Amino acid sequence: MQTLYKTLNKINEIDSSLAEKIQKRLDNLTKPQRSLGRLEEFANKVGQITGKENPCIKDKVLFVMAGDHGVVDEGVSAYPQEVTSQMIYNFTKGGAAINVLAGHVGARVIIIDMGVACRLVSHPKILVRKVNFGTKNLSDGPAMTRGEAIHSIKSGIEIFEEESGKGLDIAGTGDMGIGNTTSSSAITACITGEPVENVTGRGTGIDDNTFSHKIDVIKKALEINKPDPEDALDVLSKMGGFEIGGLAGVILAAASKRIPIVLDGFISGAAALIAYVLEPKIKEYMFAAHCSVERGHGIILDYIGLKPILDLNLRLGEGTGAALGIGIIEAGVKILTQMATFESAGVSEREDRKR
Amino acid sequence: MQTLYKTLNKINEIDSSLAEKIQKRLDNLTKPQRSLGRLEEFANKVGQITGKENPCIKDKVLFVMAGDHGVVDEGVSAYPQEVTSQMIYNFTKGGAAINVLAGHVGARVIIIDMGVACRLVSHPKILVRKVNFGTKNLSDGPAMTRGEAIHSIKSGIEIFEEESGKGLDIAGTGDMGIGNTTSSSAITACITGEPVENVTGRGTGIDDNTFSHKIDVIKKALEINKPDPEDALDVLSKMGGFEIGGLAGVILAAASKRIPIVLDGFISGAAALIAYVLEPKIKEYMFAAHCSVERGHGIILDYIGLKPILDLNLRLGEGTGAALGIGIIEAGVKILTQMATFESAGVSEREDRKR
Repeated sequence: MQTLYKTLNKINEIDSSLAEKIQKRLDNLTKPQRSLGRLEEFANKVGQITGKENPCIKDKVLFVMAGDHGVVDEGVSAYPQEVTSQMIYNFTKGGAAINVLAGHVGARVIIIDMGVACRLVSHPKILVRKVNFGTKNLSDGPAMTRGEAIHSIKSGIEIFEEESGKGLDIAGTGDMGIGNTTSSSAITACITGEPVENVTGRGTGIDDNTFSHKIDVIKKALEINKPDPEDALDVLSKMGGFEIGGLAGVILAAASKRIPIVLDGFISGAAALIAYVLEPKIKEYMFAAHCSVERGHGIILDYIGLKPILDLNLRLGEGTGAALGIGIIEAGVKILTQMATFESAGVSEREDRKR
Repeated sequence: MQTLYKTLNKINEIDSSLAEKIQKRLDNLTKPQRSLGRLEEFANKVGQITGKENPCIKDKVLFVMAGDHGVVDEGVSAYPQEVTSQMIYNFTKGGAAINVLAGHVGARVIIIDMGVACRLVSHPKILVRKVNFGTKNLSDGPAMTRGEAIHSIKSGIEIFEEESGKGLDIAGTGDMGIGNTTSSSAITACITGEPVENVTGRGTGIDDNTFSHKIDVIKKALEINKPDPEDALDVLSKMGGFEIGGLAGVILAAASKRIPIVLDGFISGAAALIAYVLEPKIKEYMFAAHCSVERGHGIILDYIGLKPILDLNLRLGEGTGAALGIGIIEAGVKILTQMATFESAGVSEREDRKR
């Protein structure tokens, strides 16, 4: 508990006193004022988060956390559970979408086993922080114990802190775990109060029958577990999963260290909900990279109050959207820090701003 | 006329026979089918445009064309005309937004003087293809002669062909020219048939009085010139400008060489309209990088039938949105060409696709 409380206590408001100063610099750059729209907004927010007028994004890190879900026994996914570990090996070999997109934006990928159901073959690129061998079936009872929920968040915090020691200017979240849209829908329904139907999607691509069964499973899970929406640890422990807890830890740790955190899609959104209930101040540290096809995701973003950067009909996870979002945020920061001012470039000001 | 006709004759349909083959490869990559949404669409389109199942994006080029507009005498812009040439010098020194964003995505910037009002100081980075020293005031009569319109398109074609000889896998369009939103609104109103009020925006940021005056100027220009919406050369010559003609040439040349072309905002959209009237087949060769704040831009995209990639409230021009769009399209192409397949990675297929 101590690590979690210490981290929560270190989360402060962002430095909004810088907003005006940064906007003034943006307004003096050789372009019509505010003509770069949201790029300017992103740059300003990174400045306020980091407390730097001239922030620099050099080290970009994607935390891809994996875990298995006992609820797959209910047949809620289109893919077998073994895909979780197979995909982790794929990550280590560079063949997955996240490898390609992280490479595209120059980010490093950290792969973490938070609770895969099997023992993975040891590999230097896989951090093993296994809380347990997959969660239990949430439609039968709690997915994990409260102790395991705390443990998963704590591990996320620790991993973030280790990585930040190696240089970390912006972080992205990513997930891998067959069955984890079921947990995420359950978390979203519980915390936002939306009906299960409104927050449940087709995950990796299930058919109509499986879809309606998935909704029933989530309803049953909420009914028998009765998670308390105001107690994030209760929600996490009852609904799962280990990778969601780990990502909540990463998000909290990023905020505590004043590092911008870029959320991927629905699973990352569920982790953000857990973190948000624990400490609402984290809202200002987060960017929503995109809006997922998974319908619960838009509801999460509205609930927290985040406007997505991209809308490309993505629904893959792994941090793929976060990688692209980081590329756009970095572009905004470069605008702030690399452009010439009207004065330095010898460009005339607007007629009505000339002295 | 010969260069233009030869180019128009070389524009063929894209190779849609590849669509299914490329989608099949995308479906075999280690991700749920279609889970990368529009990224997959972009990759597939690049494949069909280039006629390659495994397209490669290495050389990225942004064509930034500059020209002046006689209509600035009417006081339709917030900035003085000298800013056009000052910004070109800023481009050569790397201080403008387009330099920063082109650098971010690894694209080279080609700066072309298509018709700036003054003689620019000679610089190795500036291609001088001046058609004339700025257009005439379109609210008094034609902005240029029909010969000049043809000349501007021809120059755009020639510049594209020169550059493509040096390596060119994807092209973006960009513009610089104080007063050019006025020409673009006039072109848009004429070709799409929308009322002037619906296609006119605040450009670099004009006040209410100037805005209503700008609308009157455009209405007057359409009234006295009566451009024929079915004759693109008539529209271009009467409404201007030289950089818009040049960009239309770039777009046509790209399509004739089967190279994807990424449109920036409103001015590029007006150039695309001119090119589209000359040869509607170009539609399939174009990507709309973003949707500009300039309200006429959305109308252009709807008219041609293009869905923007980004929506970041940009309204700067210079090719800034095109640069970001190129980065996203490139990400899609890398997904197609760099990811592992289920088979090569040893990842299990969906339960219902297993044999």
